[in-house]
Amino acid sequence: MQKPILFEKPIYLLSHASAVGGEEKKGPLGECFDFCDPSGRFGAKTWELAESELSRITLSLAMKKAGISHRDPDLLLAGDLQNQCVASSRAHACLGIPYLGLYGACSTSAEGLYIGASLLSASNTLHLAAVVTTSHFCAAERQFRLPLEYGGQRPPTAQWTATAGGAFLITDQIPDRPCAKIMGGMIGIPIDSGILDASNMGAAMAPAAAHTILSFFEKSRFSPSDFDFIVTGDLGYEGSEIMKGILCDNSFPLLTNHLDCGTLLYNPEIQDVHAGGSGCGCSASVLSAHFLPMLEKGAARRILFLATGALMSPSAILQGQSIVGTAPLVIFEGEETFH
Amino acid sequence: MQKPILFEKPIYLLSHASAVGGEEKKGPLGECFDFCDPSGRFGAKTWELAESELSRITLSLAMKKAGISHRDPDLLLAGDLQNQCVASSRAHACLGIPYLGLYGACSTSAEGLYIGASLLSASNTLHLAAVVTTSHFCAAERQFRLPLEYGGQRPPTAQWTATAGGAFLITDQIPDRPCAKIMGGMIGIPIDSGILDASNMGAAMAPAAAHTILSFFEKSRFSPSDFDFIVTGDLGYEGSEIMKGILCDNSFPLLTNHLDCGTLLYNPEIQDVHAGGSGCGCSASVLSAHFLPMLEKGAARRILFLATGALMSPSAILQGQSIVGTAPLVIFEGEETFH
Repeated sequence: MQKPILFEKPIYLLSHASAVGGEEKKGPLGECFDFCDPSGRFGAKTWELAESELSRITLSLAMKKAGISHRDPDLLLAGDLQNQCVASSRAHACLGIPYLGLYGACSTSAEGLYIGASLLSASNTLHLAAVVTTSHFCAAERQFRLPLEYGGQRPPTAQWTATAGGAFLITDQIPDRPCAKIMGGMIGIPIDSGILDASNMGAAMAPAAAHTILSFFEKSRFSPSDFDFIVTGDLGYEGSEIMKGILCDNSFPLLTNHLDCGTLLYNPEIQDVHAGGSGCGCSASVLSAHFLPMLEKGAARRILFLATGALMSPSAILQGQSIVGTAPLVIFEGEETFH
Repeated sequence: MQKPILFEKPIYLLSHASAVGGEEKKGPLGECFDFCDPSGRFGAKTWELAESELSRITLSLAMKKAGISHRDPDLLLAGDLQNQCVASSRAHACLGIPYLGLYGACSTSAEGLYIGASLLSASNTLHLAAVVTTSHFCAAERQFRLPLEYGGQRPPTAQWTATAGGAFLITDQIPDRPCAKIMGGMIGIPIDSGILDASNMGAAMAPAAAHTILSFFEKSRFSPSDFDFIVTGDLGYEGSEIMKGILCDNSFPLLTNHLDCGTLLYNPEIQDVHAGGSGCGCSASVLSAHFLPMLEKGAARRILFLATGALMSPSAILQGQSIVGTAPLVIFEGEETFH
């Protein structure tokens, strides 16, 4: 049974960082990211290795901000969209950090933060965990759809896989400065709505996001107004509308505080990204660059963060299998929230 | 830093089950598995869907043994070898169980049991978790190497991906009958030894297994003789020898109680599986069919279980990337172990 959990003591976001490619830098949040390589190559020979380098750079930036070295984290949770999550395992193979690979598609950021916070909460031995997720537009297009060189036309419902990474260092030790906190979370239920189109991820993920929202507010003591923002990962324009429609059909009050990372990352007036951003790095980079700073600065008190994932593979799509959506959530609070 | 952890209270294996294909049924443990489809098709149209069905069947068997329904588990941790772990997400999309996807290659069974036990240990809300991992020979060969129809010759170091699944129901509530228990574990460090050959997984995983063993006995209060068996997941014949060589080079005492699931699953005298079994389902099915019953019957008191994973993808191999190994471990005890 799906149950919201609240940790007995909060888990603190000691530091976090974001790194992006050129397209993301041109978007409305461009100035907020910690690092950008406009070429998207990150010094690597292939798009696949570029994503590994992006993962490594993003984690290094978060560690540098926290003033720690690779010897310090007790564990690393990571994931990406490449087959067998190889971008992440390749990136962090030489660091000596205990590693747990995750696959939640674009929901991996919330999955990693939920599991990481739980592992720290469970143990008197583990005190510092790293969570990093990435995606890369060129690697994802080549793997899931068509190589860029083919120049295929993208349908209006297609989302733009962000070349982006987000890294988070979380700890159960009270830091010496104000930090955002993870208070709890809820695991998503995988939902298959019969979507067959790999260029319409929003439609595949929206029912899972709506289900998580309905279930969370039914089962927890919170109401939507307890949150400054209810943030979805990468439903994009298409998926956000579908999710709102499902919530409305279930007589759920209109969400006036909903924002979607996929619609925040690019400027649709000048950037041709169709239905918005997506990818494991979309929600992770926007969380780090935009939402966590709000909590740190007191501009927001409490945020509900649902990353959304479309669990599909290239061969499953070729074999006519429908796309399963999922949407785990994490509750973030600022330092000064009163209970 | 890599740290062994012991849970404050044990997590109980309420039930577990195994299901296999025909080749595994012919092996020395054939009579121990709960279910077999000699065709390996499990009623599905494709090898990929057959693996999903195998995952579903294995979990259903474990639930039936425990006398519970799909509404009961608070979470499901699952993983497999298919791109984007789609065999698992497809299998469990319609059950309504909160789902966390994992990718640890053939080490996913230990990764899932470690994370699952930690999540139960961390929470006063979550009490019952399911862990299921699978692999399918035909789906894996087509994806990682060559379609079976091609009839490619396999080199002597190649391992045979088991058509097998293992499912485990774990709980923090004391069951009403003797059960094996998870006492703790340790996360593996990913190690890249430069192995480029996708037909030599044993060599890629052995350094990680040796590292985990050396690190665990250095950092914990245990010595090898505290365990009836030190079980590796699927190093096979090749990898087991390499691991023993590395331990010897590090002046570690000879492991007289080492067994490897990959060498237990098939009979090399009559089955042409080269270097032994492998796959997410290899260690999971042998753990359920062979080792956990030993603990339940009092034939063993304590077992150290290291599942071993080769973190690689088909495209990474084609691009000349080396294979990263990892080896998380879990400590199992029988009901009557005294401390």
